[in-house]
Amino acid sequence: MMTTATASGQVVALSGGVGGARFVAGLQAVLAPGALTVVVNTGDDFDHLGLRICPDIDSVVYGLAGMSDEGRGWGRAHETWNCLEVLTTLGSDDWFALGDRDMGVHLYRSDALRRGHCLSEVTCSIASRFGVVSRVVPMTNSEVTTVILTDDGELAFQDFFVRYRCEPRVRGLRYDGVSRAALPEAAIDALQSPDLRAVFIAPSNPFLSIDPILAIPGVRPMLRARGVPIIGVSPLIAGRAIKGPLTSMMDSLGVERSARGLIAHYGDVVDALVVDSADSDQASAVGVPVRCLPTLMTGAAERVALARQVLAFAGELADA
Amino acid sequence: MMTTATASGQVVALSGGVGGARFVAGLQAVLAPGALTVVVNTGDDFDHLGLRICPDIDSVVYGLAGMSDEGRGWGRAHETWNCLEVLTTLGSDDWFALGDRDMGVHLYRSDALRRGHCLSEVTCSIASRFGVVSRVVPMTNSEVTTVILTDDGELAFQDFFVRYRCEPRVRGLRYDGVSRAALPEAAIDALQSPDLRAVFIAPSNPFLSIDPILAIPGVRPMLRARGVPIIGVSPLIAGRAIKGPLTSMMDSLGVERSARGLIAHYGDVVDALVVDSADSDQASAVGVPVRCLPTLMTGAAERVALARQVLAFAGELADA
Repeated sequence: MMTTATASGQVVALSGGVGGARFVAGLQAVLAPGALTVVVNTGDDFDHLGLRICPDIDSVVYGLAGMSDEGRGWGRAHETWNCLEVLTTLGSDDWFALGDRDMGVHLYRSDALRRGHCLSEVTCSIASRFGVVSRVVPMTNSEVTTVILTDDGELAFQDFFVRYRCEPRVRGLRYDGVSRAALPEAAIDALQSPDLRAVFIAPSNPFLSIDPILAIPGVRPMLRARGVPIIGVSPLIAGRAIKGPLTSMMDSLGVERSARGLIAHYGDVVDALVVDSADSDQASAVGVPVRCLPTLMTGAAERVALARQVLAFAGELADA
Repeated sequence: MMTTATASGQVVALSGGVGGARFVAGLQAVLAPGALTVVVNTGDDFDHLGLRICPDIDSVVYGLAGMSDEGRGWGRAHETWNCLEVLTTLGSDDWFALGDRDMGVHLYRSDALRRGHCLSEVTCSIASRFGVVSRVVPMTNSEVTTVILTDDGELAFQDFFVRYRCEPRVRGLRYDGVSRAALPEAAIDALQSPDLRAVFIAPSNPFLSIDPILAIPGVRPMLRARGVPIIGVSPLIAGRAIKGPLTSMMDSLGVERSARGLIAHYGDVVDALVVDSADSDQASAVGVPVRCLPTLMTGAAERVALARQVLAFAGELADA
């Protein structure tokens, strides 16, 4: 029996920022309200001008709330930059682009964290106030910091990404604090729900966005124990990342830019893989079922189509 | 000999926010660049959403930088409110109107203070980056908080002003922390400058804006010891304050709304008084010289005219 894309049941997605945010926006559009839980990477979170910045959480929340700037690819639509302009005038750190509307979120979150609320609680409030019907859960409430080991030394993600423009050759990564981190209760509840039907690994950067989540103690065993399809969605199209440093990172870290490379990298946590239609030549002999689909989400229609198809794929795997 | 308004020499003004900011903008326009030092009340400063807010300092800096919104009477011209709109959506404290451009100043200052810079240093940087040629000096670098004793209990200024709309009857005021406060070096330097020619007390609320400055240990003796004219400018026109709670505060605190009342209130720290032309009937028999001038600063021309005339008055007093 072919399970339809709108079948009931809970779905969990592990996600990073931009690409992941688009993917989960498609899932949310197709699933019943409340059926989606997104567990979001926080390894790139950092403090800036006294504000706690959570780039991936905000991308996911804005994406699910329909607030993203689709053209720019990050931040909010209809954004203004007057605060940042003043910071520039004052000679302040202005390398991180803080929009005025975005600032409202940073101020609210930073204040709530200082008052003792935890990140999952604050994220839940923000998403709910923005009308998001899915659960957005940070991968952990404790501090985990991704450190990128490069030929130019150890760099925090924002330094690597914004200041160094991803130019230094990456030799490895470290997720500081991850051995003491724990999934928040809302993520555990979703992953242990008797109603869970599938887990997706969004088409995010594996090293920067997904591995930090998988590195949290207990996550891999919890996923393997579920017995529901766990499907990775490849962030590659024709062997290359659409944007960001993934292409060169895979090369320098010795991970083949292919279905086989991704399967080998994620290991036994992944039951199946979705690759782009452009990579159909890589779809066989990789040891797990592979589905070829158009993964380039240029707009809402493409996101929704991809969501329907990955959910159908999950249904087939569950019924197999 | 009549000293002209453009005579050389340093001028110090003690100031609160809006009305004071207009007055010192006039002085700056008339004086040689660098000749003006404004010592600004910080008794209304407070913490909000993790930001240090200094309402009077910002009003003075924006006024001197030509950035004030003259219509609204506070904050910056050409301001936008997108951050505040998001804070409202998020159910955050939005009772204090934070503009997007204004936010840049709050963020910069709060970050610099957290890094260990003192308020006078940070204020100097902000004013200088905004092109202000005068020195803007907070009355102190330590925390002084004006507490308003009302029939509804003790209220911080912002509570009294914004939340309670100045409605509770005022029984008294307290400047918490003032006995341990000291004038910053830049203020002492200006007041002890051999080149000092006059000190003005801006047409600000005496209780809320001027008394906190005068209550700092050593300020009154330092002023009296100078031997230069110290001229108060009345914030009353026809016995009433243009805006704000001053009119009712004077009544409930038993201070006569007249030249005589102000002279009695400021005491021997004031050598002379400027009152509005509408109050010329109060100009005699008050024990000190009184000059009647049009004090309603509706625009730049009126500010400049008033500045020329108060400086001329100071020159006459010095020559007397």
